[in-house]
Amino acid sequence: MAAYNVVPLARLVEQFERLPGIGNKTAQRLAYFVLNMPKTQADEFAKAITDAHEKVKYCTVCCNFTDSELCPVCRNEARDKSQICVVETPRDAIALENTHEYNGTYHILHGAISPLNGVSPDQLKIKELLSRLTDDTVKEVIMATNPTVEGEATAMYISKLLKPMGIKVTRLAYGIPVGGDLEYTDEVTLARALEGRSEI
Amino acid sequence: MAAYNVVPLARLVEQFERLPGIGNKTAQRLAYFVLNMPKTQADEFAKAITDAHEKVKYCTVCCNFTDSELCPVCRNEARDKSQICVVETPRDAIALENTHEYNGTYHILHGAISPLNGVSPDQLKIKELLSRLTDDTVKEVIMATNPTVEGEATAMYISKLLKPMGIKVTRLAYGIPVGGDLEYTDEVTLARALEGRSEI
Repeated sequence: MAAYNVVPLARLVEQFERLPGIGNKTAQRLAYFVLNMPKTQADEFAKAITDAHEKVKYCTVCCNFTDSELCPVCRNEARDKSQICVVETPRDAIALENTHEYNGTYHILHGAISPLNGVSPDQLKIKELLSRLTDDTVKEVIMATNPTVEGEATAMYISKLLKPMGIKVTRLAYGIPVGGDLEYTDEVTLARALEGRSEI
Repeated sequence: MAAYNVVPLARLVEQFERLPGIGNKTAQRLAYFVLNMPKTQADEFAKAITDAHEKVKYCTVCCNFTDSELCPVCRNEARDKSQICVVETPRDAIALENTHEYNGTYHILHGAISPLNGVSPDQLKIKELLSRLTDDTVKEVIMATNPTVEGEATAMYISKLLKPMGIKVTRLAYGIPVGGDLEYTDEVTLARALEGRSEI
């Protein structure tokens, strides 16, 4: 209890506890760590938080986070503007970037349709996606939402909106993960892998 | 890579990565979480960090963290000033406080002697402990450093300093943890439990 009466410390513990996946013990550990940092480092940390909030905004095209008007991908002349890969979060876009296999652009929905969690389609960046499809630049929209119920529903919802516009809508392949084990692969995934088999 | 080029965001990820037990993936998750916070909450978080650094200092008696001259324990008239429980970190003092069994005061060493990690006795708050023993108030010093090689060495070092002063020095009991399993208790602990057995 002793240290809990130290108000600024307790407040810092509280702040860390709000972060996802951080419980009370870890929050305490982090707070003491921050307290033991040199003053300049702690100031940098605090500044990084306010800076991120002040300077980071949505890219006016793809809704990814950026500190200028366009994100690095949308700004890049070498990227293929005829493909849009639709993902739920910026972290999904990073994961796809890390494959070094995709040269098109992205569109970040910032979530997935989830009636249970009160997320309806109009809370996602779907309008922004539709406004990118008004001219004939875009030839293909790749749905790369998560392979979950919410991700599936979102992919279905958007593809139904895009079909009448005559745009090709594709979905990431389902199948066994590379390096995975057939024995431990769930039946649904295995069934999808079978369904999507290709000639070798 | 896309989002990595967003400098303020990358900087925030970096800051989180510096914290103990937080890797790159978690740091990203936390940074995005902070970015999605309302502005006021992010500001509170940043302020909690700088505040903790500016307002929290060492208690002039026991070296625990406090926001005034004395920590809540040293300030408390009801605490038994004749007992000092010596611990390595403020978190150890909290753990002891949570037992609600101890009514004496603490002394925080802020570490343990560890030549391998370059921590020598003069880097710990040992001088501050000795200066508390100059009058006859203190009757007992309880060594509650960790049951590790470093903790043991520290306890031995301090007890050797205190013995000539005629002060009773005690050490926390070793034994099987309550709710533990004899079968899975290591031999050293079991030997100590046997050694320290008491009549029932």
